[in-house]
Amino acid sequence: MTETVGDVGEFGMIDHVTAYFPATPEVELGPGDDAAVLNTASGNVVACTDMLVVGRHFRTDWCTGEDVGHRAAAANFADIAAMGARPTALLVAVSVPADLPLDWVKGLAAGLAAEASQLGAAVIGGDTTSGEQLTISVTALGDLQGRKPVKRSGAKPGDIVALAGRQGWAAAGYTVLSRGFRSPGALVGAYRRPEVPYEAGPSAAVMGATAMIDLSDGLLADLGHIAKASQVWMDLDSTAFVVPDHMRNAGEALGVNPYEWIFAGGDDHALLATFPPDVLLPDQWQRIGVVSAGQAGWVTVNGEPWQGNKGWEHFSKPDPTLS
Amino acid sequence: MTETVGDVGEFGMIDHVTAYFPATPEVELGPGDDAAVLNTASGNVVACTDMLVVGRHFRTDWCTGEDVGHRAAAANFADIAAMGARPTALLVAVSVPADLPLDWVKGLAAGLAAEASQLGAAVIGGDTTSGEQLTISVTALGDLQGRKPVKRSGAKPGDIVALAGRQGWAAAGYTVLSRGFRSPGALVGAYRRPEVPYEAGPSAAVMGATAMIDLSDGLLADLGHIAKASQVWMDLDSTAFVVPDHMRNAGEALGVNPYEWIFAGGDDHALLATFPPDVLLPDQWQRIGVVSAGQAGWVTVNGEPWQGNKGWEHFSKPDPTLS
Repeated sequence: MTETVGDVGEFGMIDHVTAYFPATPEVELGPGDDAAVLNTASGNVVACTDMLVVGRHFRTDWCTGEDVGHRAAAANFADIAAMGARPTALLVAVSVPADLPLDWVKGLAAGLAAEASQLGAAVIGGDTTSGEQLTISVTALGDLQGRKPVKRSGAKPGDIVALAGRQGWAAAGYTVLSRGFRSPGALVGAYRRPEVPYEAGPSAAVMGATAMIDLSDGLLADLGHIAKASQVWMDLDSTAFVVPDHMRNAGEALGVNPYEWIFAGGDDHALLATFPPDVLLPDQWQRIGVVSAGQAGWVTVNGEPWQGNKGWEHFSKPDPTLS
Repeated sequence: MTETVGDVGEFGMIDHVTAYFPATPEVELGPGDDAAVLNTASGNVVACTDMLVVGRHFRTDWCTGEDVGHRAAAANFADIAAMGARPTALLVAVSVPADLPLDWVKGLAAGLAAEASQLGAAVIGGDTTSGEQLTISVTALGDLQGRKPVKRSGAKPGDIVALAGRQGWAAAGYTVLSRGFRSPGALVGAYRRPEVPYEAGPSAAVMGATAMIDLSDGLLADLGHIAKASQVWMDLDSTAFVVPDHMRNAGEALGVNPYEWIFAGGDDHALLATFPPDVLLPDQWQRIGVVSAGQAGWVTVNGEPWQGNKGWEHFSKPDPTLS
């Protein structure tokens, strides 16, 4: 019989899970006490939090616990990187049904730990409880290493818009899975475990990025957040986006325009930034558009409003911030 | 018609909620970007996280959103205080059903903000999503102000055991509510909005506390965590606990021995610490027992195993760590 979370109880589950968690030299005190203690090199701390709900942000028949651990950690560490900071640590809280297999939770811990480890970040704490709907909340911490945070509000007319990382792959993988398919593996894998260009965040900050965001709501929606916060007009050049063959083929097979995935998809956690026009773009960054004055808050593609789906919102209402 | 979360959408809800959140001089960047930035006075950061699920940790017919906000913040800030640290900030993630009244969520934000404000702490970030089961995850950050963290593992034979704060009041309030009553108000109020002796944490650290914990699993259960981590035997003196009149009366009316509430109740978030035997106990701290060698991990009352309920565990299994 499969051992469940209920079989081992809360404290048993904690022991199973914390065994996976990596420490780093910055961790003065890790999991197991009331709180953890982290030493910060630069005297400040960057912090963000994100909640994933089963059936909404992930499905247990599409993703293993390990996949979900990678995704949950990546979603938060990408936010840290988008401030120009280096991820240092995460905390995780989970609400799990008592009949959930213990192996799923161990996989979740392993995935969180692996994503943190590859960055030199630690897992320093957490909480477990039982609940009816599997829910995972991750908080990530980061270190600016003496730099100023790169906000959403700093884009200026004349700046160029640049992207680091893959865009649209995870959204395509989601469509593939939702139609009952399991391939192409590159797209499905991109949905299950995003490959975030974490180092591109600090390197953009070093090179003078004026605004930065991680793509979690969708390319156009997140461009809209910068456009609104910076009171500028962002225009994308669609020719900057080369549709990979597997994405084009999947689009043809599924009857989807691949630019829908590229412009509206967010689950890749690519990074988007604006730079002064004379910048030498750092590695991983590619020019995709320009910032203009004029219509503050507008987002356009080749100078025109995008006619397709704009992105993800959790309560099925149109986002009034998008033009 | 009552306006719901679904009516205003995710971004609308965020605007409503962040309006309540206090900033402090330590906040370099608050909510609204990918992540927040907090300046730390002492170069380290204390962090913990806690998840509350409706029907398990709170009921919307027993508590307002504002009550739940106070409780969720208090549960986390108490963990920070129990390390000997000063609370500085919190982040909150919520999963809410679309038909939840918007006013409930606004109350939650107001309660979180009020509990933080009274401590000079900020609310620096969060996440909202929709889900079937109302779930709240709070992460708190704190500052040790140059002190060493007070762990669970430092209790030594010969130390005294001391308590700061009310104990058993919230558990009694829970019993009152669960039997369908609404008074005495002092007990019900203690359940709805715990009064945590936050300052007692740092002051215990300054006075040389050897171990400290916040009471969230129950007095005996949390004593067990210290006993196990420190490999000592903790013995309580039951005569140190004076049962308040309203608790005694409620116990008689409900057929409950009030010591059940005192020894097994955790929702008051009182602080428990051990001190060297010659210490002058700081304000708010009261001696309740002694630490001995001998049976490592044992917890006793007047030298004997406690026969009643020992505390709270989330999957209804006996806790093997308790003697």
